[in-house]
Amino acid sequence: MVAVKLQKEENRQAFLKVFPTLADEVLAELRKYNMPEDAYEWTKKMLYYNVPGGKLNRGISVVDTVRILKGDSVTEDDIFKATVLGWLIEFLQAFFLVSDDIMDASITRRGQPCWYKSEGVGMVAINDAFILESCIYIFLKKYFKKTNYYIELVELFHEVTFQTELGQLCDLITAPEDHVDLSKFSIKKHQFIVIYKTAYYSFYLPVALAMHMVGVKNEEAFKQAHDILIPLGEYFQVQDDYLDCYGAPEVIGKIGTDIMDNKCSWLINQALAKASPEQRKTLDENYGKKNADSEAKVKQIYIDLDIEGTYKAYEEKSFNDLNALIDQLDESAGLKKMVFTEFMDKIYKRTK
Amino acid sequence: MVAVKLQKEENRQAFLKVFPTLADEVLAELRKYNMPEDAYEWTKKMLYYNVPGGKLNRGISVVDTVRILKGDSVTEDDIFKATVLGWLIEFLQAFFLVSDDIMDASITRRGQPCWYKSEGVGMVAINDAFILESCIYIFLKKYFKKTNYYIELVELFHEVTFQTELGQLCDLITAPEDHVDLSKFSIKKHQFIVIYKTAYYSFYLPVALAMHMVGVKNEEAFKQAHDILIPLGEYFQVQDDYLDCYGAPEVIGKIGTDIMDNKCSWLINQALAKASPEQRKTLDENYGKKNADSEAKVKQIYIDLDIEGTYKAYEEKSFNDLNALIDQLDESAGLKKMVFTEFMDKIYKRTK
Repeated sequence: MVAVKLQKEENRQAFLKVFPTLADEVLAELRKYNMPEDAYEWTKKMLYYNVPGGKLNRGISVVDTVRILKGDSVTEDDIFKATVLGWLIEFLQAFFLVSDDIMDASITRRGQPCWYKSEGVGMVAINDAFILESCIYIFLKKYFKKTNYYIELVELFHEVTFQTELGQLCDLITAPEDHVDLSKFSIKKHQFIVIYKTAYYSFYLPVALAMHMVGVKNEEAFKQAHDILIPLGEYFQVQDDYLDCYGAPEVIGKIGTDIMDNKCSWLINQALAKASPEQRKTLDENYGKKNADSEAKVKQIYIDLDIEGTYKAYEEKSFNDLNALIDQLDESAGLKKMVFTEFMDKIYKRTK
Repeated sequence: MVAVKLQKEENRQAFLKVFPTLADEVLAELRKYNMPEDAYEWTKKMLYYNVPGGKLNRGISVVDTVRILKGDSVTEDDIFKATVLGWLIEFLQAFFLVSDDIMDASITRRGQPCWYKSEGVGMVAINDAFILESCIYIFLKKYFKKTNYYIELVELFHEVTFQTELGQLCDLITAPEDHVDLSKFSIKKHQFIVIYKTAYYSFYLPVALAMHMVGVKNEEAFKQAHDILIPLGEYFQVQDDYLDCYGAPEVIGKIGTDIMDNKCSWLINQALAKASPEQRKTLDENYGKKNADSEAKVKQIYIDLDIEGTYKAYEEKSFNDLNALIDQLDESAGLKKMVFTEFMDKIYKRTK
């Protein structure tokens, strides 16, 4: 167990070590264009502030997946390429987070002020988000143009970006922070939002990138990966919603605010589906209100409706369903079961 | 002359007629993804609000350029494809304008409230801007994947998008509306901003797209086009800066506010380069101030320094230099002089 942890930390450090190379590539582009010095320094600061500070799970999972798929034949060049692709997901995520924070009027991110909230930045952060997105295609061109899967990578990033934007749109208009209307919520809408806003870029994208890299061409294999990873990503987000309410703040590192923030969470949607007219009235009157009393009333209804029990049953079923899918996987198309079992190990029964 | 105008209006109408087809393509993607109905309706409204309402000069110039380059051999399919590419520039422009308006805190655009200012939109407009950008790649894949210049189109859009973002970044940090510091301004910085923020996507992009479409592969031809179109775009923006101050409001359709808005305009940069220490002090004290008195003092210095005369001389020189470049153009590489002379006719000595 200690050895596994050490190996994990070593892989993480190796992954992190590639970031400055990529930042330098972007900055070299700026030099090529004779960008004025202050804009050059701005961009440098912006890249380091926003890209590398997260958990890096998404990025590192590209490398892990390539290692599994290639097995003993994996080369240093494979690891480097997979690391670059992993960072591209981190750039994509930075593009989303910088802009989501503005749209959600958030204050902090990863233990520091959100970029748009930091000294002298403000709405320039919107354009910075665009630049983060543009970096993806600079790197793809630089490192993958000569491969026979270049256009597939470019199209995959385009598609997943669009899917995430659709999820974000749906989330924003379903659950605006300043206007509560629970009639807009539904279990189906929640599912759409989590799949499009999170599952595609966090779960499907890393594996699909790795598959392109190791030469999988079979469309059926991509569909198989999709059919496991999208429900897995959905479960991951449901779990996130659950932990926001029931996780120990000292473990998850934050105090959940989904109820006060009018979030279209899995919990409220389950509660709405089960609530009596009287309970519904209490939810309508108290959800999305910025006070502890209202929040407590909503939480009491969750208890009365045993939403925690509903969650445990959902978790059990989702775990079993996914294991059954993985079990049936035909490895001859280029995939390996282990890609998915590793994801399952990381995610199921996590506490943070 | 009347016939030319009629033909121009007919071409414009033909161009406009393709927009609903493209909007329907995007909406069909949303249906494919089972997007909830309210998000579907939102996107439909957003597309019609933001994409087709401009002058469409950039888009139509792709069609004009393809007509010139193909001459009599132009087919209906060529015109349709060029129209699609033209619309992609309009989508790119919509992506920039929707987000620029937020960054600049603008109020109106094209005679209606800016999208983010319209009822119930607000910061969701940031994500809408992303969606407008994503549309470009949906259309490229749909209409050009089978061509042998598909990847060139994709890379060109990526590159020009990045260049425009760099220009916007430089503009935003050089001339923030709420903090005047003329020491950040310079003629060189102004040139960088106008070339990157405007010239690439407005002038180089339409012609480069048309060149790819008609099969130009020679890199030298792209460089020749670049070397004419970038200075032409620079001149166009300088002219825009000039008209903001000296154009007749009833002709340009707005009252210029560049001085009050602390814009990094060509005029102020010329004035700074010529000002005596005393005049410089007056500029420092009055530029970017939101009152008519301060604006009048700045305008008086422009008169004292004969900035209008400087402009006329610049215009003359730029006109002659560009005509000389066009004259030297080697048509054997696939380009035609007429592509550029048409641009010249549209732009030089315009009054609005």
